[in-house]
Amino acid sequence: MPSSSPAGTLSGPVLVVGAGLLGTSIGLALRRRGVDVALADLSPENVRIATGLGAANVKPDDRTEPALVVVAVPPDALAPVVAEALRDTDAVVTDVGSVKAAPYTAVADAVTAAQLTRYVGSHPMAGSERSGPLAASATLFDGRPWAVTAHGTADPAAVAQVTALAAACGATPLAFSPEEHDAAVARTSHLPHLLAALVAGRLTDAPRSHLALSGQGVRDVTRIAAGDPALWQQIIAGNTAAITALLHEVRDDVDTLLLALDRDDRDAVAALLDRGVAGTAVIPGKHGGPAVVETSVFVAVPDHPGELARLLADAGEIGVNIEDLRIDHDPGRPVGLVELFVAADSVEHLLGSLEERGWTTHR
Amino acid sequence: MPSSSPAGTLSGPVLVVGAGLLGTSIGLALRRRGVDVALADLSPENVRIATGLGAANVKPDDRTEPALVVVAVPPDALAPVVAEALRDTDAVVTDVGSVKAAPYTAVADAVTAAQLTRYVGSHPMAGSERSGPLAASATLFDGRPWAVTAHGTADPAAVAQVTALAAACGATPLAFSPEEHDAAVARTSHLPHLLAALVAGRLTDAPRSHLALSGQGVRDVTRIAAGDPALWQQIIAGNTAAITALLHEVRDDVDTLLLALDRDDRDAVAALLDRGVAGTAVIPGKHGGPAVVETSVFVAVPDHPGELARLLADAGEIGVNIEDLRIDHDPGRPVGLVELFVAADSVEHLLGSLEERGWTTHR
Repeated sequence: MPSSSPAGTLSGPVLVVGAGLLGTSIGLALRRRGVDVALADLSPENVRIATGLGAANVKPDDRTEPALVVVAVPPDALAPVVAEALRDTDAVVTDVGSVKAAPYTAVADAVTAAQLTRYVGSHPMAGSERSGPLAASATLFDGRPWAVTAHGTADPAAVAQVTALAAACGATPLAFSPEEHDAAVARTSHLPHLLAALVAGRLTDAPRSHLALSGQGVRDVTRIAAGDPALWQQIIAGNTAAITALLHEVRDDVDTLLLALDRDDRDAVAALLDRGVAGTAVIPGKHGGPAVVETSVFVAVPDHPGELARLLADAGEIGVNIEDLRIDHDPGRPVGLVELFVAADSVEHLLGSLEERGWTTHR
Repeated sequence: MPSSSPAGTLSGPVLVVGAGLLGTSIGLALRRRGVDVALADLSPENVRIATGLGAANVKPDDRTEPALVVVAVPPDALAPVVAEALRDTDAVVTDVGSVKAAPYTAVADAVTAAQLTRYVGSHPMAGSERSGPLAASATLFDGRPWAVTAHGTADPAAVAQVTALAAACGATPLAFSPEEHDAAVARTSHLPHLLAALVAGRLTDAPRSHLALSGQGVRDVTRIAAGDPALWQQIIAGNTAAITALLHEVRDDVDTLLLALDRDDRDAVAALLDRGVAGTAVIPGKHGGPAVVETSVFVAVPDHPGELARLLADAGEIGVNIEDLRIDHDPGRPVGLVELFVAADSVEHLLGSLEERGWTTHR
């Protein structure tokens, strides 16, 4: 066991098992802080690429005992690799899989109670539609939530070590039990992914001409459905209980809707829509704080390099911080509509000042 | 009847009935082209505001016969107002409602066959989460698709007039039958809206702490669920047949998923996810053309006014056109991750040039 380290400092060396997107990014982030990192992967090519990118500085044949092992392999391979690391080393062991309860149970079945105290699962809320070490980045976790999912018998020093890992990678550690974590991501990630896939799937039946009426709404709803099916199939399979419960609720909602449409019961439809509005309001705002009162402003921007920059330079000079920005997709026109999201109390100032500078704006 | 006008030119005067977001925006867009516009609304206040904004130049007591009447009232009030306009004037009459088949049938039942030839429905694919004349803009329709839904007995001159209206407002007219239109928007707009509402609705049950794990995915999926329930309830009620058919398909998909999860049938889950990926690929790209090969690049940007502008100014100087842009929401950190979407063949140039200018980037 490594000695207890306070959260926020991380003592290496860290062995990262799995040199894909997440493992390589963790190596890069830790090397940025000067932590010693070793990398292992079934693919020597992945290790060569990741090491070449600067994700590791400890040679593969260096027998120095790691203080922390980070398992960053695909979901299906996760539990055996964690168990092996607990048996073969005295290190704290964590993983970065998207599901936490089932792997914990599998690990608990495969190691001794004493070994199990050194395991603390975790889950950085970061990723990419690309995969592999070439997609990695030292900044992948900067500012992202990173769930640390200690089980009941985890050693507090091990929890501190994994919390320190999250912080050292630039993320914000958040404590959850494995079961709480899985319930949370079933709702905030897995169910949205599945329903986005259902909505997108319905588009494949449409005549192409109908799709010309696609607006920004359907693009936003379906964006995440483009994610890697092989990875998502494993994630879904690892969290079936929580997902099944939510899917039953959705099925009931769909039945309620079908009945309401059949009976022309508009109150029932309105109740469901009202509940949707309430749901959008409980998602935390930027920076994890309470939802900020933001308003959006539309600006017409010529679709040439530099025009968007000129708009934002003007907004910067005006002194208004742009919280978010969306470029509307527009068929067949050289002018784009840019939607700027700003704090509600800066809207009047922004609109007036942009119009003064010659921009065409509306709310 | 006005004389036949070729698509692309519009002869006024145009009477817009309903001075809300859409009606006022149409008035503003037409006045921009010098077309004479009169406005009517049950609310004298709305007419005063819209006229004050410049959406009309013909006085309410001017008895000049309109060449075109545009009905821009809420969905439930639409058919009677269209029928009244057909009976009371000799003008071409259109409406801008989100649903087309049911209002057409109601109008056909209320007027003579001769009067019906002057009716051609339409639907601009533009809107806002705000409503009322103060939210209006002359540029609301610029570059947006605008469905023109002629029925079988519509006069070709009337179709040309409504097509010219769409073009004069800056939109791209697209011809559909009323039934085709409704089938298309059921799939590309109404079903996505309802399922976004279901996903968002599930969030209201979650402990607040769980919502800290909300990422960009669930934000995107649920964004449109914040739309006005009173308006959407009317839209849904007007397109029940097409929506019901799609909801039955979704219900079957949910049943398939539940069975697959129960049996741990991963192939069935993967098939559904694969279909979702295929669906995201058939949505047309920006500017209505085929989907463009775009790649995204991530850049770390300090969260201060002007920094985003500096980034985009640099991108502009580099000569790369930013097709779209996303600012990642990051809890508790003064650095944001900005995702720039650019043509795939400019990525290397952009990455290298941004790094040269001191930006931290990754794919």
